Amino acid sequence: MAYKDEQLHEEKVFKDPVHRYVHVKDRVIWDLIAAPEFQRLRRIKQLGTTNLTFHGAEHSRFNHSLGVYEIVRRIITNFEGRPHWNSEERLLCLCAALLHDLGHGPFSHSFEKVFKLDHEYFTQQIILGDTKVNAILERVAKGFAQDVSDVIAKTYKDKLVVSLISSQIDADRMDYLQRDTYFTGVSYGHFDMERILRVMRPMEDQVVIKYTGMHAVEDYIMSRYQMYWQVYFHPVTRSAEVILSKILHRAKVLYEDSNYTFKLEPTHFLSFFTGHVKLQDYLKLDEGIVSYYFQLWQEEEDDILSDLCERFTNRRLFKYIEFNPNLQMNEWMELHRLFMNAGIDPDYYLVVDSSSDLPYDFYRPGEEEERLPIHLLMPNGELRELSRQSEIVESISGKKRTDHKLYFPIDLIEKIEDSTVKKRVEEILSGQGEVKNAN
Amino acid sequence: MAYKDEQLHEEKVFKDPVHRYVHVKDRVIWDLIAAPEFQRLRRIKQLGTTNLTFHGAEHSRFNHSLGVYEIVRRIITNFEGRPHWNSEERLLCLCAALLHDLGHGPFSHSFEKVFKLDHEYFTQQIILGDTKVNAILERVAKGFAQDVSDVIAKTYKDKLVVSLISSQIDADRMDYLQRDTYFTGVSYGHFDMERILRVMRPMEDQVVIKYTGMHAVEDYIMSRYQMYWQVYFHPVTRSAEVILSKILHRAKVLYEDSNYTFKLEPTHFLSFFTGHVKLQDYLKLDEGIVSYYFQLWQEEEDDILSDLCERFTNRRLFKYIEFNPNLQMNEWMELHRLFMNAGIDPDYYLVVDSSSDLPYDFYRPGEEEERLPIHLLMPNGELRELSRQSEIVESISGKKRTDHKLYFPIDLIEKIEDSTVKKRVEEILSGQGEVKNAN
Amino acid sequence: MAYKDEQLHEEKVFKDPVHRYVHVKDRVIWDLIAAPEFQRLRRIKQLGTTNLTFHGAEHSRFNHSLGVYEIVRRIITNFEGRPHWNSEERLLCLCAALLHDLGHGPFSHSFEKVFKLDHEYFTQQIILGDTKVNAILERVAKGFAQDVSDVIAKTYKDKLVVSLISSQIDADRMDYLQRDTYFTGVSYGHFDMERILRVMRPMEDQVVIKYTGMHAVEDYIMSRYQMYWQVYFHPVTRSAEVILSKILHRAKVLYEDSNYTFKLEPTHFLSFFTGHVKLQDYLKLDEGIVSYYFQLWQEEEDDILSDLCERFTNRRLFKYIEFNPNLQMNEWMELHRLFMNAGIDPDYYLVVDSSSDLPYDFYRPGEEEERLPIHLLMPNGELRELSRQSEIVESISGKKRTDHKLYFPIDLIEKIEDSTVKKRVEEILSGQGEVKNAN
Amino acid sequence: MAYKDEQLHEEKVFKDPVHRYVHVKDRVIWDLIAAPEFQRLRRIKQLGTTNLTFHGAEHSRFNHSLGVYEIVRRIITNFEGRPHWNSEERLLCLCAALLHDLGHGPFSHSFEKVFKLDHEYFTQQIILGDTKVNAILERVAKGFAQDVSDVIAKTYKDKLVVSLISSQIDADRMDYLQRDTYFTGVSYGHFDMERILRVMRPMEDQVVIKYTGMHAVEDYIMSRYQMYWQVYFHPVTRSAEVILSKILHRAKVLYEDSNYTFKLEPTHFLSFFTGHVKLQDYLKLDEGIVSYYFQLWQEEEDDILSDLCERFTNRRLFKYIEFNPNLQMNEWMELHRLFMNAGIDPDYYLVVDSSSDLPYDFYRPGEEEERLPIHLLMPNGELRELSRQSEIVESISGKKRTDHKLYFPIDLIEKIEDSTVKKRVEEILSGQGEVKNAN
Repeated sequence: MAYKDEQLHEEKVFKDPVHRYVHVKDRVIWDLIAAPEFQRLRRIKQLGTTNLTFHGAEHSRFNHSLGVYEIVRRIITNFEGRPHWNSEERLLCLCAALLHDLGHGPFSHSFEKVFKLDHEYFTQQIILGDTKVNAILERVAKGFAQDVSDVIAKTYKDKLVVSLISSQIDADRMDYLQRDTYFTGVSYGHFDMERILRVMRPMEDQVVIKYTGMHAVEDYIMSRYQMYWQVYFHPVTRSAEVILSKILHRAKVLYEDSNYTFKLEPTHFLSFFTGHVKLQDYLKLDEGIVSYYFQLWQEEEDDILSDLCERFTNRRLFKYIEFNPNLQMNEWMELHRLFMNAGIDPDYYLVVDSSSDLPYDFYRPGEEEERLPIHLLMPNGELRELSRQSEIVESISGKKRTDHKLYFPIDLIEKIEDSTVKKRVEEILSGQGEVKNAN
Repeated sequence: MAYKDEQLHEEKVFKDPVHRYVHVKDRVIWDLIAAPEFQRLRRIKQLGTTNLTFHGAEHSRFNHSLGVYEIVRRIITNFEGRPHWNSEERLLCLCAALLHDLGHGPFSHSFEKVFKLDHEYFTQQIILGDTKVNAILERVAKGFAQDVSDVIAKTYKDKLVVSLISSQIDADRMDYLQRDTYFTGVSYGHFDMERILRVMRPMEDQVVIKYTGMHAVEDYIMSRYQMYWQVYFHPVTRSAEVILSKILHRAKVLYEDSNYTFKLEPTHFLSFFTGHVKLQDYLKLDEGIVSYYFQLWQEEEDDILSDLCERFTNRRLFKYIEFNPNLQMNEWMELHRLFMNAGIDPDYYLVVDSSSDLPYDFYRPGEEEERLPIHLLMPNGELRELSRQSEIVESISGKKRTDHKLYFPIDLIEKIEDSTVKKRVEEILSGQGEVKNAN
Repeated sequence: MAYKDEQLHEEKVFKDPVHRYVHVKDRVIWDLIAAPEFQRLRRIKQLGTTNLTFHGAEHSRFNHSLGVYEIVRRIITNFEGRPHWNSEERLLCLCAALLHDLGHGPFSHSFEKVFKLDHEYFTQQIILGDTKVNAILERVAKGFAQDVSDVIAKTYKDKLVVSLISSQIDADRMDYLQRDTYFTGVSYGHFDMERILRVMRPMEDQVVIKYTGMHAVEDYIMSRYQMYWQVYFHPVTRSAEVILSKILHRAKVLYEDSNYTFKLEPTHFLSFFTGHVKLQDYLKLDEGIVSYYFQLWQEEEDDILSDLCERFTNRRLFKYIEFNPNLQMNEWMELHRLFMNAGIDPDYYLVVDSSSDLPYDFYRPGEEEERLPIHLLMPNGELRELSRQSEIVESISGKKRTDHKLYFPIDLIEKIEDSTVKKRVEEILSGQGEVKNAN
Repeated sequence: MAYKDEQLHEEKVFKDPVHRYVHVKDRVIWDLIAAPEFQRLRRIKQLGTTNLTFHGAEHSRFNHSLGVYEIVRRIITNFEGRPHWNSEERLLCLCAALLHDLGHGPFSHSFEKVFKLDHEYFTQQIILGDTKVNAILERVAKGFAQDVSDVIAKTYKDKLVVSLISSQIDADRMDYLQRDTYFTGVSYGHFDMERILRVMRPMEDQVVIKYTGMHAVEDYIMSRYQMYWQVYFHPVTRSAEVILSKILHRAKVLYEDSNYTFKLEPTHFLSFFTGHVKLQDYLKLDEGIVSYYFQLWQEEEDDILSDLCERFTNRRLFKYIEFNPNLQMNEWMELHRLFMNAGIDPDYYLVVDSSSDLPYDFYRPGEEEERLPIHLLMPNGELRELSRQSEIVESISGKKRTDHKLYFPIDLIEKIEDSTVKKRVEEILSGQGEVKNAN
């Protein structure tokens, strides 16, 4: 299928601190960036609550989306003229890269968990629904929006195209590792992307890596591993996420409680509470709106909602200890009881959060299920799965690491009046190792 | 006066992408950072609408405030033991550096202009009023909050302390040039701060620069000049600011119009409209709140307010041409008339914006009035004003540059029905040179 | 003329710390890099004695030559398809860029001055003579070597091609500013080359700059200005150069002195001493050879030669003061006399060195004579000389700055036995301002 | 023992591209840097032949030595006031750091192998012998030079001091990883040194790492692993080293051959050939001298010496294949025979080179034997060996990786006249996988 591929009169660029410049030549890309549904990504932070730990991490999903587009653009520029590469897929790849995160809302992780949502569903709704984005895509060709949606949903027939955006070494990951490194200021996420782009080769159903680039890929995998544990799963960030989730949970509970009335009707949240989120409601909810409600709710009569909102807004986070409830069942149950006795609702103030990550895997368990393994293109033309060639990757491959933490408000515990209860709580908590602060 | 200078058990650090680490040892600094009034700075962008031009520029005033604190900390660490340096002022310098921008609200420039406010006034209100920040400062010593306020207001008796934060080469400027360079990704704002810190010397009433550091200072001044014209006065950023100001202006006009009723009472804005902004109202207004109202107002019945809010939210900005109304009085008046005829209100849709900057000056006109000139400490112990020693600074010193632009909505002009009016408008606009886009 | 433009089987890259990668696709470039005359540039430092001031500056001319090639490659890749650009000149541009410094010898500045040589003459000799480089070039086309030589000599008919390598904003300067910045570690030489490359446009007889890139060019010019005074004319570097020149001068004097015999015949220097330097002799003289002789000559009987060689080798440099012999004629003559009296030969131990630079000029005096001014391509299609458009460039344009320093060995002065002479020497020297050290 | 610790009038700095500035306050450090034996390190490249692979890697051991000094300076500045830290050892640490590589000669690896030398022996000779360095050290205190020598030799009584310079995470390694990364331009060697310095704690007999810094240390270990395989063991670098070793070997053989006479007596090499290298001979041999002889020897009558010198000088390196002679004994022996038949001396032209590395180890085999394992300081105050705490380190710990390559001159093989021999050689070589080029 030949797309209507109108070019801009002159190439446009965006100054980007990570890739120096993002280059745009196609009118459809230019128009998509200007669409309201895409501009909305400016109002959603890429890393949710991470900026409460790393203050530089205030960058938006708009930033990241441009970056993924730019990386795919560079990859397929290198692909031009190579076997297996169908240059008619060019515009499809670029659009899918640009729009792959379009359905994200504010603090997606918490919203999805509490309200049982799926941002990928909304990405498809925006691309296929009655939106500006859809209209722009359909101008390219009849059915083009569906193709873009399929690529993002990984159901598109040409798996090579899919793998550019969804594999264990795709443009998505390469952008966020570098971008999050840049904005947080940590030194973990550096790797030689320019080299990786040079050794990427299109194959029938995936992008593979010429064997001479193996070490650059090893470095990328180690970077990713470090970023997960140093940044993405940082316990302070998770403390803020715990509070956020509990706010959403509490608001829903209150809404469902016929005895409770909000001072101001939470208009923007209604469809979330009832579980029937329409696209137009979803698009209206950005971080500014959430922040507005959290400010309002500090004035609500419900102590828990008001307290949690004040904590989140002013960054008065929960403390934490290492704690695995599966192994420490008795302590867990006793703490529950003690909190109840002390009048501190354990559903909101005694929270276990678990994170786990696979640095790399050749099979596909858990969250990795749809990410393809990495294949090397060997001198003899054969493909070889990375961990069979790289000792360092082999040694970490499939090693899932999980981390459990127990979060609680140290200030409330300090105020427990019954000194026996208070003492016992402190005893249990401190018996588990150091109580840690939010920095 | 000896302050109560309690130290933290162990030094804390913040990872900062610009200065690598921000170091905190003093309990008062730690507590100030945790205060709600300071945390609020996380919800106010350092560069207002600049992120609509440079998408990386999403960093907050929280970021910058930590940076200014860190630079002052490094400067006065170098000062320890030098003549003229009174180490008892240490904590005062650190607090003033940290809090110097505390009174900024969202999009300060536009709010101050439309509502006749002054962020410096609110900085003082927060420091001296019934706030958490005030309580923390007063724990140091009775009257300490007043001293901090005086340093920021430049009325403090020890002018050396004042000059750390307010001179033509102070910690404020050194941080924002580097920070804004980092987040925008431009290459203009680099200079050798480490060298400048090494050659700073305390004198009786100001910080001076050892003459061996003159070239590093020249480089800093050129960086500043470039940043002003390349980033701070970027015409696209100003286009967004023009729209923002007109939104605020329109909302105020509508509020004052007894025939008009807002669909939802604009609670957060009421005191701004009436001109009696109380501290608690001011503190509640952050960018999230503004963003909430701009979304609501898109649904207002007033076409102008609704249109401008939609433009700002979705970044549909005004185009611009070079235009000096003082020199082009006839065209200016004719355009006004034509817009009126076409039913496009020129008060909102035909806007001149002017920017001007002095790269460096030895005297003090205009916005520079309270910034001190830079003095070099010569080998013979004398002080010499920079432009007398540096040919390059001398050559640009006092050269004020002003730039006028005319902003208008090209899409509305294209829709003018009366073809004679439309043609004449387009004739005048294109007669002034290229009509420019938002990128 | 169509050149035989054989491509490599696969593109090769060199990892380059400044440009990330240097890309080579043409066999002729690959072969030229491998030629012994080009490999020889590895044994000649780009910045001569600068590493004695900035220890990082140990990079070779090989480095820089690859860099200039890479910049030209990127410029003309952007030129493809534009008017005025003749893609048949591509290979010619690349070869000229790669080879433009081929005739440099060790410490060119000093050797050229003392032995009346010209590295540009040797560049032509190598390209046109009986060399590997010549053979490779002639394989491209009959007469191709002559064309390459003409481009470097600025006599080639197509002035556009010449201007890529020799103008006030050519690939040569853009590489060395960034490269020398990188290796010295100073922060002065940063500018946005990527942006400048994007706004370069080919015209009939020169490369011009689209007016939107004016500020990037201003930044480049200021960088250049700072690099000259902070790095290239650094007084400590010049101190080492003074000693080096005096060594060469002394060795020549001794060679011409029939009463003096070198312990080991200075074979490599003979043709330099007699003034008839053959190409093969020239090519043999690299920094390793010079260093060998300077070690040997420390054992020579002549005290001056031996002393100067020891000083250079062990970095025991001369001190210096600001001193303009034209204005301080009496002091100059008296010092001369006093040095003679004290038995310290003023020809070798009392040396004035002058440096001067024009930051930018629209006309072409002195060393700039063959560097073209920079032209902006205005919106109306006209060309405008940079300093007529840029206030900042206008303000420094044509301002030649000259700096005179007097160098002398403080240790020998301290050992003068006649206390009256010694006292008077010290009086004169210290009367001129601070005596400065080598760091 | 209290050292005489004279301070400079004003702190001096060296601009360093890796650490920004190197700070010197102590006169003894300043004087050591100026000593001829230390200045000599400017004439010895840090990475020997690596610049033939990564052209940026032209930095000297002088560079690196300043860097190690600076890192130790920063570490012990952090140690001030902590338990276990004896501030009287300060100057000893700094001197040992600065001088730890003082005994290196040009291309140490090859020289040590061929002539059975040990640079550590010469480091001690220079520190303890009749040198400027020794005189400067002895001015500090009687016996101070011996202490410095003992620290470097790892025999000093205070093992904490030793561990700063010789452990698996010492200042030596931290400098060279970052410095070699910077100059080569690769992206592998980045890690967060500033964080590591912050978590280093002095203990009785070693420096340990506070457990909160574990991930930064993991990152450092992975960086080191990558640098070894990507840079230090790069096959092209090893190709140049193979040729270099063979040159030295051949020159020695010729010297021992009574029938052979060098055109010019190889004065500087005589003591190396005879095996009795005196300190003064050793100090005279820098890379310039070696380069001089390699140029001369191209004119020698011996074809092998002349050919190898020409290859090294002009970078005409050997090609290579993966080849393990232990596993491929038959091919190895047949190739030997075939080379003999073809008149190509296999001792010089058929060379196996093996490299191996342990990324990290808790015990101490091979080259690591005197490098201590890394210990974490746990919250409970106990020490824990790193690989017991870090899964990622555990997974690579003790995994020695070895790599064998066979080097040969492809050009000579192409010229073999006996077509049967030639064909069989090519058959064997190509049977082992791809024949690889020098880039």
